[in-house]
Amino acid sequence: MSDVGQQWPHTAAIFGASGGIGAALVRALGERGVERIYAGSRSGIALDGPGVTPFRFDLTDEASIAAAAEEMRDNPPELVIVTTGVLTLSDGTGPEKSLKQIDGAAMSEVFALNTIGPALIAKHMLPLFPRDRRAVFAALSARVGSISDNGLGGWHSYRASKAALNMLLKNFAIELGRTHDQATIIGLHPGTVDTALSEPFQSGLPEGQLTEPEEAAANLLGVIDGLTQRQSGKVLDWKGEEIAA
Amino acid sequence: MSDVGQQWPHTAAIFGASGGIGAALVRALGERGVERIYAGSRSGIALDGPGVTPFRFDLTDEASIAAAAEEMRDNPPELVIVTTGVLTLSDGTGPEKSLKQIDGAAMSEVFALNTIGPALIAKHMLPLFPRDRRAVFAALSARVGSISDNGLGGWHSYRASKAALNMLLKNFAIELGRTHDQATIIGLHPGTVDTALSEPFQSGLPEGQLTEPEEAAANLLGVIDGLTQRQSGKVLDWKGEEIAA
Repeated sequence: MSDVGQQWPHTAAIFGASGGIGAALVRALGERGVERIYAGSRSGIALDGPGVTPFRFDLTDEASIAAAAEEMRDNPPELVIVTTGVLTLSDGTGPEKSLKQIDGAAMSEVFALNTIGPALIAKHMLPLFPRDRRAVFAALSARVGSISDNGLGGWHSYRASKAALNMLLKNFAIELGRTHDQATIIGLHPGTVDTALSEPFQSGLPEGQLTEPEEAAANLLGVIDGLTQRQSGKVLDWKGEEIAA
Repeated sequence: MSDVGQQWPHTAAIFGASGGIGAALVRALGERGVERIYAGSRSGIALDGPGVTPFRFDLTDEASIAAAAEEMRDNPPELVIVTTGVLTLSDGTGPEKSLKQIDGAAMSEVFALNTIGPALIAKHMLPLFPRDRRAVFAALSARVGSISDNGLGGWHSYRASKAALNMLLKNFAIELGRTHDQATIIGLHPGTVDTALSEPFQSGLPEGQLTEPEEAAANLLGVIDGLTQRQSGKVLDWKGEEIAA
């Protein structure tokens, strides 16, 4: 929202504020003058910036998400962005290149972090959404989560977890739409951004295809600013173009 | 394959042979004269019929799936059908009607059974597929696993698990297509079939929309018979019509 004087959102929450894109979103929202920015991370460490309120959450601990939502109840965010997501697991296991690399426990962990965690955030945050004004719930998805766009295969768990997330976002949009006519739910593909997630996979990229986190944050906020109600439940890329399921 | 004298498949494997559709598929394949039918269930109990070889497997126990595949190595199936799937969990938890019913552990269990289990079966069975003749890997999916077709919402975990399965089937089709030019991978929507899975949800169905397992099995085998290579990775309904992602 580049127009001076526009006042949306007054309050925002970033789940995953210590990540590359999440931290850039917190900064960008601060520069816009958003009055309060809840900045959530696993450590709960404070981030710089006026109006930033740090909080702690763990995607695999629903009670921590419920507690975070409870802290925001008196001044709930009009914009929630979930920026979390894993491609490489914490033990170093990277995305599968072939069927034989599929491991049930690893796939389950990817679903827990990329699909179930965002669902739990939606469960606890959407009930806080105002009914009388604009509100947006956005989660980072990925173009590789598109089934119809999939021409290369591989990355089995990651692709499946994002397809499942996209289904849930559609489901949540339908459910929220029954009670909130100014609320939108959206999946966002940020492009390939220079973060820890993409770092092991950047070498083959054509020049100019790697986006800096600051630019990605600006792109995503631009897409959010331009959202229309009929786009709720869709996945959009960083240019605002719809990505087919 | 209704043509007399056609000899495909010689050997088939049904994962989930004790379920309504699975048991009907075993019977239908027996009536076709399929020489060997591996009939897998959690209990491993024998099913009636000529050529039926029972085996035991558990979707959440990869070693049991690997052992089953190993037993089939000398006479591998040209047709594998995964008929497993849960809508209601064993503790009686039904599909979510709303966001607030989402439970992380329940959703994780649905992914384990509906998505990860079939992926583990593919991991161990696809390497047995012949390269010199026709082979089909089919898994029961569902129309409600289509993101673009989703107009009602709800059933969060089930829908997400089937969308994720559909992505994996597409992925596996791409991977298998690199080495096998006569092998096809497909998701199948059987319609609403009179089984334990659908039983709690049959009351609102229009008359004539509930299919008996025998009819469903015949429909699905008819679709499999008619598969073309370019359909690999798609989801088809019981009439053979493609369901969009």
